[in-house]
Amino acid sequence: MSANAWPLDIVIMAAGKGTRMKSRTPKVLQKLAGRPLLGHVLAVAGQLQARSAVVITGHGAAEVEAATADAANAAGQFDLKFVRQEPQLGTGHAVQQALPVLADDGVVVVLSGDVPLTQAATLQALVAAAGGDRLALLTVRLPDPTGYGRIVRGANGDTNGGVQRIVEHKDASAAERAIDEVYSGIMAVPARLLRPWLEGLTCDNAQGEYYLTDVVGMAVAQGVPVAAHCIADAVQVAGVNSPQQLAELERAHQLRQAQALMEQGVRLADPARFDLRDHANGTPAQLHCGQDVEIDLGCIFTGKVTIGAGARIGAYCHISNAVIAADAVIHPFTHIDGEQAGASVGAGALIGPFARLRPGAQLGQEVHIGNFVEVKNSTLAAGAKANHLAYLGDATVGERVNYGAGSITANYDGANKHRTVIEADVHIGSNCVLVAPVTIGAGGTVGGGSTITKSTPAQSLAVARGKQIVKDNWHRPAKQPKA
Amino acid sequence: MSANAWPLDIVIMAAGKGTRMKSRTPKVLQKLAGRPLLGHVLAVAGQLQARSAVVITGHGAAEVEAATADAANAAGQFDLKFVRQEPQLGTGHAVQQALPVLADDGVVVVLSGDVPLTQAATLQALVAAAGGDRLALLTVRLPDPTGYGRIVRGANGDTNGGVQRIVEHKDASAAERAIDEVYSGIMAVPARLLRPWLEGLTCDNAQGEYYLTDVVGMAVAQGVPVAAHCIADAVQVAGVNSPQQLAELERAHQLRQAQALMEQGVRLADPARFDLRDHANGTPAQLHCGQDVEIDLGCIFTGKVTIGAGARIGAYCHISNAVIAADAVIHPFTHIDGEQAGASVGAGALIGPFARLRPGAQLGQEVHIGNFVEVKNSTLAAGAKANHLAYLGDATVGERVNYGAGSITANYDGANKHRTVIEADVHIGSNCVLVAPVTIGAGGTVGGGSTITKSTPAQSLAVARGKQIVKDNWHRPAKQPKA
Amino acid sequence: MSANAWPLDIVIMAAGKGTRMKSRTPKVLQKLAGRPLLGHVLAVAGQLQARSAVVITGHGAAEVEAATADAANAAGQFDLKFVRQEPQLGTGHAVQQALPVLADDGVVVVLSGDVPLTQAATLQALVAAAGGDRLALLTVRLPDPTGYGRIVRGANGDTNGGVQRIVEHKDASAAERAIDEVYSGIMAVPARLLRPWLEGLTCDNAQGEYYLTDVVGMAVAQGVPVAAHCIADAVQVAGVNSPQQLAELERAHQLRQAQALMEQGVRLADPARFDLRDHANGTPAQLHCGQDVEIDLGCIFTGKVTIGAGARIGAYCHISNAVIAADAVIHPFTHIDGEQAGASVGAGALIGPFARLRPGAQLGQEVHIGNFVEVKNSTLAAGAKANHLAYLGDATVGERVNYGAGSITANYDGANKHRTVIEADVHIGSNCVLVAPVTIGAGGTVGGGSTITKSTPAQSLAVARGKQIVKDNWHRPAKQPKA
Repeated sequence: MSANAWPLDIVIMAAGKGTRMKSRTPKVLQKLAGRPLLGHVLAVAGQLQARSAVVITGHGAAEVEAATADAANAAGQFDLKFVRQEPQLGTGHAVQQALPVLADDGVVVVLSGDVPLTQAATLQALVAAAGGDRLALLTVRLPDPTGYGRIVRGANGDTNGGVQRIVEHKDASAAERAIDEVYSGIMAVPARLLRPWLEGLTCDNAQGEYYLTDVVGMAVAQGVPVAAHCIADAVQVAGVNSPQQLAELERAHQLRQAQALMEQGVRLADPARFDLRDHANGTPAQLHCGQDVEIDLGCIFTGKVTIGAGARIGAYCHISNAVIAADAVIHPFTHIDGEQAGASVGAGALIGPFARLRPGAQLGQEVHIGNFVEVKNSTLAAGAKANHLAYLGDATVGERVNYGAGSITANYDGANKHRTVIEADVHIGSNCVLVAPVTIGAGGTVGGGSTITKSTPAQSLAVARGKQIVKDNWHRPAKQPKA
Repeated sequence: MSANAWPLDIVIMAAGKGTRMKSRTPKVLQKLAGRPLLGHVLAVAGQLQARSAVVITGHGAAEVEAATADAANAAGQFDLKFVRQEPQLGTGHAVQQALPVLADDGVVVVLSGDVPLTQAATLQALVAAAGGDRLALLTVRLPDPTGYGRIVRGANGDTNGGVQRIVEHKDASAAERAIDEVYSGIMAVPARLLRPWLEGLTCDNAQGEYYLTDVVGMAVAQGVPVAAHCIADAVQVAGVNSPQQLAELERAHQLRQAQALMEQGVRLADPARFDLRDHANGTPAQLHCGQDVEIDLGCIFTGKVTIGAGARIGAYCHISNAVIAADAVIHPFTHIDGEQAGASVGAGALIGPFARLRPGAQLGQEVHIGNFVEVKNSTLAAGAKANHLAYLGDATVGERVNYGAGSITANYDGANKHRTVIEADVHIGSNCVLVAPVTIGAGGTVGGGSTITKSTPAQSLAVARGKQIVKDNWHRPAKQPKA
Repeated sequence: MSANAWPLDIVIMAAGKGTRMKSRTPKVLQKLAGRPLLGHVLAVAGQLQARSAVVITGHGAAEVEAATADAANAAGQFDLKFVRQEPQLGTGHAVQQALPVLADDGVVVVLSGDVPLTQAATLQALVAAAGGDRLALLTVRLPDPTGYGRIVRGANGDTNGGVQRIVEHKDASAAERAIDEVYSGIMAVPARLLRPWLEGLTCDNAQGEYYLTDVVGMAVAQGVPVAAHCIADAVQVAGVNSPQQLAELERAHQLRQAQALMEQGVRLADPARFDLRDHANGTPAQLHCGQDVEIDLGCIFTGKVTIGAGARIGAYCHISNAVIAADAVIHPFTHIDGEQAGASVGAGALIGPFARLRPGAQLGQEVHIGNFVEVKNSTLAAGAKANHLAYLGDATVGERVNYGAGSITANYDGANKHRTVIEADVHIGSNCVLVAPVTIGAGGTVGGGSTITKSTPAQSLAVARGKQIVKDNWHRPAKQPKA
């Protein structure tokens, strides 16, 4: 992205309570695709190469500032400032609070912290419309504009002219109500124009509030051109005021992400059943797919996930912070979450169904992990297999190891975690316990049902089980009579 | 809800066969959201504080009566009566069968047992429109009214006037076909007016049937006002005649339930992928959520479920007859069904993924139940953990117990169930078997791979395993040649 | 289906690259419902009882021919021929390549290998419209025909007349652009008419290509009637050029399959969350359901699946190449895949949740398979139960056997698979290992935690476990200090 013609300073209104959310969490911290609404707005500020972002907080200010500073500092793309608006006397009053931290050489873009899906390209066009000497409004055409402030252009409402005013629905004439272009709440304007307008706002209205939209009248009165950048895509300017609206935007966002992946050639079995979100640990959502990746329906991806060419992801998988190599096959109902440590699946590996890979699972080429198997903080070399009902934790597993059904690495002694080493070509029988720390030497065999507490030499057979005793003519307990 | 101005007697037509359902089950017993269609209609009768409900049965009468009496008696809100219509000679004939059990001092509301989603408020408005001396029809405006009986109002079709008649599509003039208000099949009328009209019905028509709608003409002829309560929401009057229509109403109903939850502040990741149903054991669907509950996509709830404030339910969970306390986290693919006994999850507990809680699972605060773990009829005190591939059945587990991977309570001797007691602070190793009845004393440890058949004292270490034997230079079997 | 009045020869254009798919796989091999697009078209050719199908290949010709010959030979319904089009000089040029293998006594139907959802009845009507002496075009009415070639009928565009010409959007007059009937790309024409027209095609146009649609003008010039069979259902003629279009048609196809099942009386909880596909091993999708089958939401079926009357399939099940008998209940999250060997579930059996049945799982009446249980290549007789965390592989299990939680058949010695036999009425305790080959005699009991290596007699108790040793006042390891 090329540098901007003017320094951009983003003002984000984030003081609202969001009563209809009925939540203890401030509205701008409600999550869409796993990221706070305000985080989406700040991400766009980053894409715009903004010089600064000024977040105007109010309700839950401390919580908003704390949550936001972390995320934004991690990104570190622009100068992040917070100003508080207390009390809250309208949109004009909100932006007034930002004036002390705004420089006069920039263009100010006013956004809302509860409008998460505006695209950077849209705002770039808006900034271009403002240029160095105009007020530019982002507008949208709505099939049903009832209730919204209409954009009145030209001397007589001519739709090609500059904006003359914004007329509220309740004040609009019949002709004005027929206008389907409405104001989005988003504007761009050079700071040197905005400052005196904001200082001149009054609250002589029924609500006793300072309205940001009054600057339109000031611009027109002063002969400053008011441009409108009009889009048709209402999702970009939709705000979140209720759980319903949040869910609607979540779906719109997910569908767009799905469309973008399909544009790249990813095959999705059902774009309406695809989800990609930020990880709960804050890792931003990023899904990179190689050629000919197939993703079946109902999958959820979080955080950073990379899928190699030709890999196939089965239905209803959850994959998070993980790398899946080329041609791997992840069967349905597989749960992979690398959290901070990451998880990786080697080329051509077969995983699932009903498998779970946890942080630090590092699986080599052609590894097979089958049903009801959990792997955590373990490395499996190429060709190793654990196909049935098993646990591998804190283990180092060599090439071609066959890890039997029901076998467990006992890695935790109640206080500390210990490591199990299973060298190449070992065969672990069924329902074994490997009590760590322990090493099974290369090529060795552990008999089924053995609890192994001491390391074993290479090429050995280790067995630790009771002798089989048989009692003939044995009668199992009979059903007890009820007392 | 305030008492009704007139006693309400609900007449429900439930005699139809439902040929297009292609089912052995009578149509009104087909289930929507886990409840028979007729059960939805009776539930509305309950909400209306009806005095009585008269169900007119025919096809599969005995089955309908048996299934319905149970459910309604459980509710016990009104006097439930059944009358049979045999043979079935039309809607008027159906309601005629109810006359002997209808008192003259009430208002009769005629409903259909295959129209499940009418709302009580709609019917209350209809009853108010009937008052003590009018016939009131429930009507609906349809975008495409083709095929439906149109509502002709006023002397000349004026839409503000009283209803003059219902004209069938095939008999309608071009002007009448332009009417988009159609009759829903639902009416309210004082019994003292209805009785003589029904008695005067004739079957002089092509089908040789008695039509209930003929009462409209009788009312008009007698100068009795015919009111129409018109709604726009066609779902409320939609009937079920085929699996397709059943599925459409199921989705409409589920979406409305989702919307109602979001109104209360519940965060749903995808309202189109949320289901709440009656439990298979008959417990009515009821989902109570505290503040800031988040429910991920694809979850199914049945019966009575309570979710405490701040709890989060992961994707694709099934939760039935259970109580989830505040701030618990239920990871994806968790299956909880308390059936009759109930199941409960303590505050701050972590459950799943791939966990299953069965009846009588009672989990305390901060309990952790991990992947491939099943808990049945067991109490786990605060802080107890069973994180991997384990079974806890008929067990009492103390505080802070760590229950190892692969361990099993052997609660069933082939005839009787016995109880396992694991006292506080016990550490059970991996792949153990605890053969009930048995008690592991407080603070004790059971070594991995042990089968414990006798109770152990507090603070003890119990081990029951074979001695580890190693044979060097052991060769595993080679691949057998094909015979 | 009755024999055709004329021999049908199907010409399928399958030479395109499909650049927008961004795939290494030729476009006509992209899969919809698990079957290559071209496979769908060939299946329709089979339904039409075609004499031959001529596939015109180009991009990826060898891959297309190899993949298609296998599938078609398996069907064996018609004579399958391939001709190559190299270079690719337009649709007319493509069909020209087929001329050497087309007989003059047939009717030629020209289809596209990337238009998968045309129905046989539609093509039969098209062929009837062609009869023995006409050119017949398949046309469709589109709400927005922008960009498509319009069908100009009669002398003056009268929509009842024969087709006069196809006018491309860019060449169309305002009046012609108002026509909403467009050409689908599919035509039927007697070969004896088609041959001279194709031979007379020229490439005197901007693209320098031979256009198949030029035959319309030739027909009109020669006085050959040009009929149009017009449908309203755009899905039938929609082509696949991108992953988005593939996903749209996938959903349309799945919804139609769901509707067809509901027409038969199958109850689907959500038709939008139902999938039926070809099996990955090539078995064509076929779902046969008895009366009163209920299928909950989110299920995926592949290959040939038969479900008996009254059986219920829970949410999110995957069922593939399997037979489910009457009144069986498959709980949610059950994964059944019989692959080549098949899998079967007996009448009244209860399976799942979280169960997995693999090839060769043959379960008798009233068998119970519970959570986290895997069954492979095993026969379970009536009433046998394996309810918790268990593996049954290569086993023969008798009637009423109770197979304990956590128990495993150790069927693999690292090189060969061996069989486990558990005779009737045996009770296998928890966490046992049965080391195959081994037989547990009828009525016998195996104590929990036993590893059984030798066969046991009938009515015996077999135990193989270590003696329980207890050390008092034992202290578990304490947390190690960090180094």
